[in-house]
Amino acid sequence: MANGTRTRLDPAARRAQLVALGLQMLSTRPLDQVAIDEIASEAGISRGLLFHYFPTKRDFHVAVVQAAADDLYARTEPDPTLPLRDQLRSSLEAFVDYVTDNRDAYMGLLRGASGDPGLRAVLDSTRSRITARVLAAAGVADPASNRLRLAARGWVAFTEEATLEWLSEGEPGRFELVDLLEEALVALMAVATRLEATGPGG
Amino acid sequence: MANGTRTRLDPAARRAQLVALGLQMLSTRPLDQVAIDEIASEAGISRGLLFHYFPTKRDFHVAVVQAAADDLYARTEPDPTLPLRDQLRSSLEAFVDYVTDNRDAYMGLLRGASGDPGLRAVLDSTRSRITARVLAAAGVADPASNRLRLAARGWVAFTEEATLEWLSEGEPGRFELVDLLEEALVALMAVATRLEATGPGG
Repeated sequence: MANGTRTRLDPAARRAQLVALGLQMLSTRPLDQVAIDEIASEAGISRGLLFHYFPTKRDFHVAVVQAAADDLYARTEPDPTLPLRDQLRSSLEAFVDYVTDNRDAYMGLLRGASGDPGLRAVLDSTRSRITARVLAAAGVADPASNRLRLAARGWVAFTEEATLEWLSEGEPGRFELVDLLEEALVALMAVATRLEATGPGG
Repeated sequence: MANGTRTRLDPAARRAQLVALGLQMLSTRPLDQVAIDEIASEAGISRGLLFHYFPTKRDFHVAVVQAAADDLYARTEPDPTLPLRDQLRSSLEAFVDYVTDNRDAYMGLLRGASGDPGLRAVLDSTRSRITARVLAAAGVADPASNRLRLAARGWVAFTEEATLEWLSEGEPGRFELVDLLEEALVALMAVATRLEATGPGG
C-alpha cells in the first residue's frame, strides 16, 4: 500500500495478493531474491503476518513458483479451434515469449532450484501436465505403449534444455527456436509411433 | 582395511582410494546415504583424516559424483572402428546398462541433487561433454549454426528424462528404450540439419 495503511482482506484474498506480489517480483529477478520483507512491505502488512500465511520463506517461494507454473501452463494452452500444427506453433510461441520475459527466474529455477523437494514437485507436476496435454492433442492420451509417453515427456525436457541454451546464447532467432521445438515434437512422435507399429514392447 | 590397520598411502592415492570407496557405495544407494563414517572405516582411517582430503562432506560427494560422471562418460565412449549408427547404438546400450546398475544413485542425482552448485556443475559439464561428442561424431563439432548444438544438447536432456521415466515405469523393455533414444537422435539431427539448410538464423 502506497500510504502504508493496512487493508482488511479475507485470508484467501490476502494469500492471493502475496503470491501475486511474489509473481510480479519473480518476473524481474531470480527466486532467491524474492524477499519476504519487500513483499510484506508492498502488501502493507508485517513480516509476522506474512509468516502466518506462509510458515517459511520456502513455503512462500513454492507458492509463487506454483503460481508461475500455472500461469505458464495457462498462457501456453493450445487453441482447439486451430489446426493441430497451428495449435502447437502458437503454444510454443507463447512459451518462448514467456520465458524470454521471465528469463532470470526461469533460468534460475530450471538450473538451480530443483534441489528443494517442494520446488521439484512443482516442476515435475508441470512437466507431467504438459506431457499429458501433448499426448491428448496427439490423440494418444492413454497410450497403449509407453514409447509415446516417454517421447512426449522427453520432448518436454528437450524443449526446456534447448530453450535454456538459447536464452544463454541469444541465437538463433526466436522464429528459428520455435521451428526447432515444433519440428522436434513432430519428429519424435513420428519416431515413437513408427517404433510402436513395428516392434514389440510394453 | 579388514584388519583395521592403517596403510600409508601418498595423498593422491589416498584420495583416489576414498573416491573409489564412495563410488562403490554409490552403486547401491543414493548420494545422501554415502556416509563419511563408513567410508573412513572401510579405508581404515579416521574421520578427521578423511576431512583432511575433503574439507566437507559435500566436497567428498562432489568428488564421488565427478568420478561417477567420468566413469559413465568412459563407458559410453563410442568405438570409432564401428559404423556411425553402431557407435551410437552400443554407446546407448552402455548408458542404459550403467544407469540400470546404478539406478538409485542416478535417479537421486538427476531428480534431486542439482540444487547444489558443485553437483550441478558436474552434471552440466557432463552434458556439455556428451553434446560435444555427439556433434563430433556427426561431423559438426563446430557448427556454423546453433541449431545443431541446441538439438544435440536437447537430445541429451531428452535421453535423461526418457530414461528416468523408464527406470520408474520399468517398461517398455531395454531394447525398445535404446531404439527410441537412437532414433530420436537421428530424427533430431535430421530436423536441425533440414532447418539449417532451408532457413536463416544464427
